[in-house]
Amino acid sequence: MQLLEERILKGGKVYPGNVLKVSGFLNHLIDESLIDEIGKEISARFFEEHITKILTVEASGIAIACAAARYLHAPVLFAKKSKTINISDSCFSAEVRSYTHGNVSTIVVEKSCLDSGDVVLIVDDFLAMGEAVRGLMSLVSQAGAKLAGCAIAIEKGFQPGGAELRAQGVRVESLAIIESMTDDSLTFRKCK
Amino acid sequence: MQLLEERILKGGKVYPGNVLKVSGFLNHLIDESLIDEIGKEISARFFEEHITKILTVEASGIAIACAAARYLHAPVLFAKKSKTINISDSCFSAEVRSYTHGNVSTIVVEKSCLDSGDVVLIVDDFLAMGEAVRGLMSLVSQAGAKLAGCAIAIEKGFQPGGAELRAQGVRVESLAIIESMTDDSLTFRKCK
Repeated sequence: MQLLEERILKGGKVYPGNVLKVSGFLNHLIDESLIDEIGKEISARFFEEHITKILTVEASGIAIACAAARYLHAPVLFAKKSKTINISDSCFSAEVRSYTHGNVSTIVVEKSCLDSGDVVLIVDDFLAMGEAVRGLMSLVSQAGAKLAGCAIAIEKGFQPGGAELRAQGVRVESLAIIESMTDDSLTFRKCK
Repeated sequence: MQLLEERILKGGKVYPGNVLKVSGFLNHLIDESLIDEIGKEISARFFEEHITKILTVEASGIAIACAAARYLHAPVLFAKKSKTINISDSCFSAEVRSYTHGNVSTIVVEKSCLDSGDVVLIVDDFLAMGEAVRGLMSLVSQAGAKLAGCAIAIEKGFQPGGAELRAQGVRVESLAIIESMTDDSLTFRKCK
């Protein structure tokens, strides 16, 4: 997606440890027109799948998931990162390792919000090692729901998550795939 | 806002400790058409203020803030709840006590995302004791930005946050104000 690639080149910042910071337009300050275009593009790629739930994980996936929801006419379900007293005990849960934050967290969704009749699209801002997506896939599987695929804003193509998921037969649509990234250069994979 | 009141009556659940659970349509599973109507209503109430930033706090305020952003044509800035290695050291920060979660957390926004030229609308899903709003107001004040007001989906009118903020001269627009709440009844304040 050319618009997203342009914004990454213009406003993204590379930090040691393969960290790409896009907090100026995507996951801290959120450009409302960019996010709307991202939602439209995700919808165009998955519209024929008749998605019934868009599943993401708090917090930075929510804006993208909501943008897609407007065009796919499906509700968003966001997994929470730890149990709170507001979350029922009747939850599906999975453990997710974050390489960025250096920790393991439990993600949960209420069982009443996801069931075997659902056709689920997983949405997130980043795909790198694939840990968050695998955690979300586990929730879909526990519910007996159908996974239509994953829509990702930015995939780090030089890390194995995307390739591993595709090798498993999961449909992964990333709107921008970074082929290589150094302090002073960033190249994208050519997409269809 | 009649649509929101109807959804609360139909799908909200009351738990001990003045907890109103709306996770079936507002802050876990998110009804995309309801949230769009909420965004439209917030925009109608604040359109003339020429908002330049919509400020909320992760995670459950994000969807509502993004819905308002589409109609107000302003970016969303969501405060994060603790420092991560992805957040720059140059942050505005404030402490927020959560009565629901029984803890105190630090909320942060990057200084580069908020400045003295901004006209800020604070958005959140709930207003009860007003702690989150006061934390967000502190961030606005630290940046030297102008506060246009607060747009809240559900205010617990029997708790003091809203009244205290209005007494301070803050414009607080709540789309549904709960006057009283028991296990088997829920009444709304009549609004203009």
